[in-house]
Amino acid sequence: MSDIRHALNTRREDDFAAWYQEVVAAGDMAEESGVRGCMVIKPWGYGIWERMQRLLDDRIKAAGIQNAYFPIFIPLANFEREAEHVDGFAKEMAVVTHHRLIADGQGKLVPDPEAKLEEPLVVRPTSETIIGDAMSRWVQSWRDLPLKLNQWGNVVRWEMRTRMFLRTSEFLWQEGHTAHADAGGAREETMRALEMYRAFAEDDLALPVIAGEKPENERFPGATETWSIEAMMQDGKALQAGTSHYLGTSFAEASGIRYQDKEGGQALCHTASWGVSTRMVGAMIMAHGDDDGLRVPPSVAPHQVVILPMLRDKPEDAALIEYCEALQMSLTSQTALGEPVRVLLDATPGKAAAKRWDWVRKGAPVILEVGGRDMENGVVSMLRRDALWNSETGKPAFQNPDRDIAAQTIPGVLGDIQSALYTEARERREANVVRDIDNMNDLAAFYESGEKFPGWVEVQWSKPTGAALEKVVEQLKAHKLTFRNVPMHTPPADGTCIFTGEPAVERIYVARAY
Amino acid sequence: MSDIRHALNTRREDDFAAWYQEVVAAGDMAEESGVRGCMVIKPWGYGIWERMQRLLDDRIKAAGIQNAYFPIFIPLANFEREAEHVDGFAKEMAVVTHHRLIADGQGKLVPDPEAKLEEPLVVRPTSETIIGDAMSRWVQSWRDLPLKLNQWGNVVRWEMRTRMFLRTSEFLWQEGHTAHADAGGAREETMRALEMYRAFAEDDLALPVIAGEKPENERFPGATETWSIEAMMQDGKALQAGTSHYLGTSFAEASGIRYQDKEGGQALCHTASWGVSTRMVGAMIMAHGDDDGLRVPPSVAPHQVVILPMLRDKPEDAALIEYCEALQMSLTSQTALGEPVRVLLDATPGKAAAKRWDWVRKGAPVILEVGGRDMENGVVSMLRRDALWNSETGKPAFQNPDRDIAAQTIPGVLGDIQSALYTEARERREANVVRDIDNMNDLAAFYESGEKFPGWVEVQWSKPTGAALEKVVEQLKAHKLTFRNVPMHTPPADGTCIFTGEPAVERIYVARAY
Repeated sequence: MSDIRHALNTRREDDFAAWYQEVVAAGDMAEESGVRGCMVIKPWGYGIWERMQRLLDDRIKAAGIQNAYFPIFIPLANFEREAEHVDGFAKEMAVVTHHRLIADGQGKLVPDPEAKLEEPLVVRPTSETIIGDAMSRWVQSWRDLPLKLNQWGNVVRWEMRTRMFLRTSEFLWQEGHTAHADAGGAREETMRALEMYRAFAEDDLALPVIAGEKPENERFPGATETWSIEAMMQDGKALQAGTSHYLGTSFAEASGIRYQDKEGGQALCHTASWGVSTRMVGAMIMAHGDDDGLRVPPSVAPHQVVILPMLRDKPEDAALIEYCEALQMSLTSQTALGEPVRVLLDATPGKAAAKRWDWVRKGAPVILEVGGRDMENGVVSMLRRDALWNSETGKPAFQNPDRDIAAQTIPGVLGDIQSALYTEARERREANVVRDIDNMNDLAAFYESGEKFPGWVEVQWSKPTGAALEKVVEQLKAHKLTFRNVPMHTPPADGTCIFTGEPAVERIYVARAY
Repeated sequence: MSDIRHALNTRREDDFAAWYQEVVAAGDMAEESGVRGCMVIKPWGYGIWERMQRLLDDRIKAAGIQNAYFPIFIPLANFEREAEHVDGFAKEMAVVTHHRLIADGQGKLVPDPEAKLEEPLVVRPTSETIIGDAMSRWVQSWRDLPLKLNQWGNVVRWEMRTRMFLRTSEFLWQEGHTAHADAGGAREETMRALEMYRAFAEDDLALPVIAGEKPENERFPGATETWSIEAMMQDGKALQAGTSHYLGTSFAEASGIRYQDKEGGQALCHTASWGVSTRMVGAMIMAHGDDDGLRVPPSVAPHQVVILPMLRDKPEDAALIEYCEALQMSLTSQTALGEPVRVLLDATPGKAAAKRWDWVRKGAPVILEVGGRDMENGVVSMLRRDALWNSETGKPAFQNPDRDIAAQTIPGVLGDIQSALYTEARERREANVVRDIDNMNDLAAFYESGEKFPGWVEVQWSKPTGAALEKVVEQLKAHKLTFRNVPMHTPPADGTCIFTGEPAVERIYVARAY
């Protein structure tokens, strides 16, 4: 197997970080923009994000949430109202101080001192406070509740060290914000959103995740509870792929979201918020990519099938294109994973073999090459991206079904690829979770053993809080470890806390993380 | 007819500006955010924008344009490169100067002087320069051309006087940017986009428009040619609803978008750009709204049919809801205007009559009220938003078809409403264009006559340029008039320029405008 020549220069096992960078570039996903911390999302990467948006938005709408749009600028006063939120967010943000430029007389533009804002504005890092303002106007009576809103947009958090899709100063996301009459309603919505994210990740992105509650030190600034879905990347690190927060009444109090209850009294709302971002694209890359590039799950692939006619700049090309068009049409008329099959007929200039490798690196699920001989025989040369190589010959594992049979079977193949990617990622995760470490020394030793991709450890703990928790967090930090979450579905604790020695009350995941 | 009580307080003919504000508020479209110049787009308004996005995006993708995403922040240096573009845009923009806030010790947050950016960043007012940077990297050879990109996003232009949807500091839009090997390709794309906008406006928004070229003084800063679609509002004013620019080689030169041609030489690209924004929502309101509120064309209505069960908080409600659900299901399974019918069953608390007027003000195309008696008789009470009143009785013009017949005929009714709105707007425009004014005095007199909604005038002109044009523009300005565009489809000029007295070379629209 080792004589297979892969389509990338870097292998995952040799340098995972360099491999990631190479996949992002070679897969035409994104690139540095030249503007500090901001990336350009290229058409193939953006097409994947659009597919994610469409699938998640359908889930959001089906849950009765309404999309709306709120200002990108947030007055400083909004941040001053919620103390914990300020501490968490008021640090690294883009601050607008002027509303005009003028020429400085030396060919340069500078902010016009005459156009200084009386109160600087912040480019939103998240919208709890500005949406809270609107909610305080829209909610008057119990009849207005629950109020369930969602926004798709861009946010900015000034990051010192950035990595494409994973951590960029500007990123794209959706943020759901809901207001409820009581804690029960808000907590129910928090959990509904969490379950929606789990289903979105697992069913649409073929990304197995652990849903659970974040410990106190990892909560969203100002939240009462923060829940997350955590995915394991191929280097064993964890990636927080979505969060859902029960905010209690603190944001409602800061924004004045009050309602008249059925008895005529005034009460504070309980609010929730939840978000998923372009980080999901990074998660998809690191969960499914291989040494030949990206592997895009068919559900989110902008093109699920790419047809490559082997054109030779000769009159025969016309018949070949016609043959491919007929194939495209019969595929497009069919359904895979609940939608019409998305097929690209790529007849752009260039050699078919070179284009094949471009599409392999981009991760198109199925590639169909069609040459003159294929046409004569009424067949196609089909390559599955999830089973690219014939391990005996070391060559691409082409299959050559009849054209009509290919058209009939490909929808099923796309479903198979979706499941195969999920199963592979899930089995990898299960093989890389350790559950039998019962003391801090062994935990440290496990991660310091020099093993390349050590994975996650699920430990039992006594759920310390405050200073006691901070002490544990520091201990973990010394080994570059973090708490991920307390999984919802795991056996009850039955042992001793590996940090405090006290009786354990629950299990929690520890891992290195993105 | 005058005894009909309308659903709004203000009539169009009494105070069009106040009417607009009332429709926006009463139709639950948008509201002031409290952040200077920025609006909140409420769920119903945003739902309409989402529909517009979907329909336009389908047209964009069908034309082979690829969506992508570029940074919201633009370095000042980008603006300094293209001289005319600087003059046009470098004035009122949001300028980011700091990347951190700190507490000032008195409970207030202030920009951290230690976190001042070396070079301030501008929040994009448009993206020609930043997308040009990317194009200069992506275009190497003639094989990479044409390169056709589009971005959906938010932009900011600091506006002193704002009006919801029509002029706001932040607005949402799409901007297409394409690079071509020669002028022919770029001009063809400019015209393709213009025709796409015309079809989008007329077919999807029922908004008749005049497509034509803007005169020199109205060009996009830095463009060689600017084309627009112009729509007439009900107060006779013009609204520029979309623009398409042929940019020549000036932006390619500023950004260095060069390619190797087939002969191996280096050549500059010709570029084009085109955009449509949330302004379209304002155009839709002012073209179709009436004294009862908004009338949303069925193609862009988030809910085309709203079913209102007349609930009475009694056990019988269950049967009524079941009856309505069956109706909803049979409607949803049908197709109107090429898509499944979008039906809302609104069973929220509140009196059906009050909710009816809410949906009238929001402009839902068809409202179906269903009470106990309707159910017994197997009928529904149907109201068409475009034919709301019985002019003889002065009461709402309910029809009472059998439920099954209603379900069968409503898709056709939706198509009829779409056409009726278009025809009404088109006839209104045709009735309000004057074509027989042949001197400047008459033009001035026409607009100063005190007529409330004077409409547009199509005049013949000699197409002056430079200072001569500026003089004419000043003359028009004295009467609050502007040039709109030189229509593509109109008889050739055969007279004298009303401004210069020289032989006319073409016809141009003059109007007051938003």
